Amino acid sequence: MDIIKETLSRIKPLSRELLQQAQAKLDNKTKPPGSLGRLEEFARRIAAISGSLNPDMSKKVVFTFAGDHGVTEEGVSLFPREVTTQMVLNFLSGGAGINVLARHVGAEVRVVDVGVDYDFADTVGLIRKKVARGTKNFAKGPAMSRAETIAALTVGIELAEQCRAEGVGLVGTGEMGIGNTTPSSAIIAAISGKTVAEVTHRGTGIGDEALVNKIRVIEQGLALNKPDPHDPLDVLTKVGGLEIAAIAGLVLGCAANSIPVVIDGFISTAGAMIASELHPDVRDYIFAAHESVEIGHSFMLERIGVEPILDLKFRLGEGTGAALAMTLIEAGVKVLKEMATFEQAGVSNC
Amino acid sequence: MDIIKETLSRIKPLSRELLQQAQAKLDNKTKPPGSLGRLEEFARRIAAISGSLNPDMSKKVVFTFAGDHGVTEEGVSLFPREVTTQMVLNFLSGGAGINVLARHVGAEVRVVDVGVDYDFADTVGLIRKKVARGTKNFAKGPAMSRAETIAALTVGIELAEQCRAEGVGLVGTGEMGIGNTTPSSAIIAAISGKTVAEVTHRGTGIGDEALVNKIRVIEQGLALNKPDPHDPLDVLTKVGGLEIAAIAGLVLGCAANSIPVVIDGFISTAGAMIASELHPDVRDYIFAAHESVEIGHSFMLERIGVEPILDLKFRLGEGTGAALAMTLIEAGVKVLKEMATFEQAGVSNC
Repeated sequence: MDIIKETLSRIKPLSRELLQQAQAKLDNKTKPPGSLGRLEEFARRIAAISGSLNPDMSKKVVFTFAGDHGVTEEGVSLFPREVTTQMVLNFLSGGAGINVLARHVGAEVRVVDVGVDYDFADTVGLIRKKVARGTKNFAKGPAMSRAETIAALTVGIELAEQCRAEGVGLVGTGEMGIGNTTPSSAIIAAISGKTVAEVTHRGTGIGDEALVNKIRVIEQGLALNKPDPHDPLDVLTKVGGLEIAAIAGLVLGCAANSIPVVIDGFISTAGAMIASELHPDVRDYIFAAHESVEIGHSFMLERIGVEPILDLKFRLGEGTGAALAMTLIEAGVKVLKEMATFEQAGVSNC
Repeated sequence: MDIIKETLSRIKPLSRELLQQAQAKLDNKTKPPGSLGRLEEFARRIAAISGSLNPDMSKKVVFTFAGDHGVTEEGVSLFPREVTTQMVLNFLSGGAGINVLARHVGAEVRVVDVGVDYDFADTVGLIRKKVARGTKNFAKGPAMSRAETIAALTVGIELAEQCRAEGVGLVGTGEMGIGNTTPSSAIIAAISGKTVAEVTHRGTGIGDEALVNKIRVIEQGLALNKPDPHDPLDVLTKVGGLEIAAIAGLVLGCAANSIPVVIDGFISTAGAMIASELHPDVRDYIFAAHESVEIGHSFMLERIGVEPILDLKFRLGEGTGAALAMTLIEAGVKVLKEMATFEQAGVSNC
């Protein structure tokens, strides 16, 4: 628990002075003030987070955390559990959606096993941080022990520390875990008090009957485990997941180490929301990549207090939305760094 | 007029068979069907437009057309008219917003003088296609002659032909012209029958009083010139602009030459709408980059029948929104080309 307390103690609100200096720099560029809209917001926030009016975005990393879920034995997903393992191998050989999109935007993908139910042994390229071989079925008891939750959070925090040491300028979150929209819906229901039906959707594409079952399973899990909505770690432990905990840790670690972090869709946002519940200033470091098709997502974004950047009707996860949003954020930073001023270009200001 | 008729005669609807083949290829990739949302739509349409399931996107070009507007003498803009010329020089030295964003996405910027009120002589890098030194003040008579309109359209058509010869895979539109939200609002008002107040906004950022004046000027221009809403070229001639006509020509030329074209904001969309009014199948070739802050923009997009890709609260023009949308479209094409299939990756399909 000490590492979490210590991490939380290092999270500070953004410097108003830097935000203002960045906007002043933007207002001197050859364009009507504010005319690049949200790109200017991105530039301002990245400047304030990184502490520089010339932020270095050359190193960008997407973390894809993988974990399995005991609750899949309740038939909540369309795909078999083995697909988590198969997709981890797909990530490592570069053929998955996140690989294609991260390559496109010049970001590196780091694949982290935090809880897959498979022994990867010495598989090349995998970051091996397995806390357990999947969670337990939360319809029958808590998904994790508190110690497992802390261990998975610590994985994320330590990866953020390493990014700081390497000079990574922008971090993205992603995940893979068959069944993991189920704990994500459970988390937002537990924390917000919304009904399960209001925040539960079709995941990879389940039909009507399976959706009714998924809602029933989550309701049963919440009734049985009674997570305390005022204790985010209790919610995470009882109805969450190992990859969700690792994402929460990564977001906390990024905030503590002054690294901007782009959160992907529904599952990543569940993790970021836990982080944000633990410390109010975490939201200043978060960029919400996109609005997912999952109906519970908008409640999470609202609760954190962030506006999604893209709306491309994604429901894949892995970090795919984060990768695309990262290139838009980088575009904003380049506007700040590379555009000519009115004076440099000899353009009349209004 | 012959070149326009000939161009229109070459525009065909997209192949349903190629659209289906592209979707089938996407559905075999390692992801739940449809889970990459609009990226899959982009990939499908690009495949059908280019006639290939492996479209080549290596060459991307943004055309920034520049022109001046006689109506600026009515005080419709915040910036002085000279800024059109100054910004053209800024584009050529690489310091403007469009330069930064096009570089970011790997697109080339081609700057075209189609109607700037300045003699650029042999300025290096400029594509010199001047039809006139700006339009006339449409509050006092027609902005252009029909011959000028045809000449500016032809500039755009010929640049598209050249792209075809060069193997350009994706074209973006952009513009620079102090005062050019005024003709754009006039065009959508004339064609849609909306009131001028419904489609007229603040451009580069004019205040309340100037907005009232801008609306009055457009109303006066429409009442005086009586453009025929069923003759798009009459609307373009009487209340349009040279750069808007060139964009209309570029869009027609792209459609005729099977090149996908990404249209930028309010002014570019006015040009694309003229093209779309001239031939119903033009819309199949158009990607709408973003939703502009200008209030008339959504009416134009609706009339063409296209959904904007981004909503970043831009109101700059130049092609800035188009550049960013181009990289998202290219991402969709890479999904189609680069992602592993279930069989290749050894992943179980549902």
